[in-house]
Amino acid sequence: MTSPDYVPLDERAQALFDSTEYATVATLEPGGQPQLSVVWVARDGDRAIFSTTRGRRKTENLERDPRCTLLIFPRAEPYTYLELRGTVEIEDDPASALIEQLSLKYTGNSYTSDAPGTRRVIVRLNPYKLLWH
Amino acid sequence: MTSPDYVPLDERAQALFDSTEYATVATLEPGGQPQLSVVWVARDGDRAIFSTTRGRRKTENLERDPRCTLLIFPRAEPYTYLELRGTVEIEDDPASALIEQLSLKYTGNSYTSDAPGTRRVIVRLNPYKLLWH
Repeated sequence: MTSPDYVPLDERAQALFDSTEYATVATLEPGGQPQLSVVWVARDGDRAIFSTTRGRRKTENLERDPRCTLLIFPRAEPYTYLELRGTVEIEDDPASALIEQLSLKYTGNSYTSDAPGTRRVIVRLNPYKLLWH
Repeated sequence: MTSPDYVPLDERAQALFDSTEYATVATLEPGGQPQLSVVWVARDGDRAIFSTTRGRRKTENLERDPRCTLLIFPRAEPYTYLELRGTVEIEDDPASALIEQLSLKYTGNSYTSDAPGTRRVIVRLNPYKLLWH
């Protein structure tokens, strides 16, 4: 077996991604200015994943420049937070499976907010650095 | 009077900066990767301010490239959040006045965590864009 070309989420990080904490995600605007948004997160094994849609600002930014940094600070422990720096892979999610999974996890309800024609994607973050602050 | 060369915080944004919500701050690493951290915030009139110290990663990043983006999402309203994109000015704070003010605001106690020799600074964010999501 070869080792992955990213830093896997350790047990403590996995627990954060299994919780209902929100994450802040940074992408890069065309000129390089950071762009921030809040997302629901989950994990695919030892990697962080989140859902977004084609045409959104952060998606367009990530399609152009895959560099992405994600931060989660637990509401109960705001002075201990996790930062992941890496690059992303974007995959189509035609069945909207991930947003449905996230909605059930965070709200307990099915996701019904997407307009017809919305093209959901799954974003996988491959961190080169995992930092606990 | 000339108008300021930044977008001033409106009343709703000022209320957020007067609260005890935490902010996530994005700076740029030497290669352009976003770097994220969590800070206490306040305002100086209609501008966002926060405290940090010389020698810290985010300070070094901002000294090299003043572009900075800040996001606050209210804990009670996580789906309504404020993003500020702009550049910063950094000013020495030899009396540690701002960190003391922030500590009293967020914890109710004096700030006693700085090691001797710590050089505090005040970071003022001049946004060119104020976005409510």
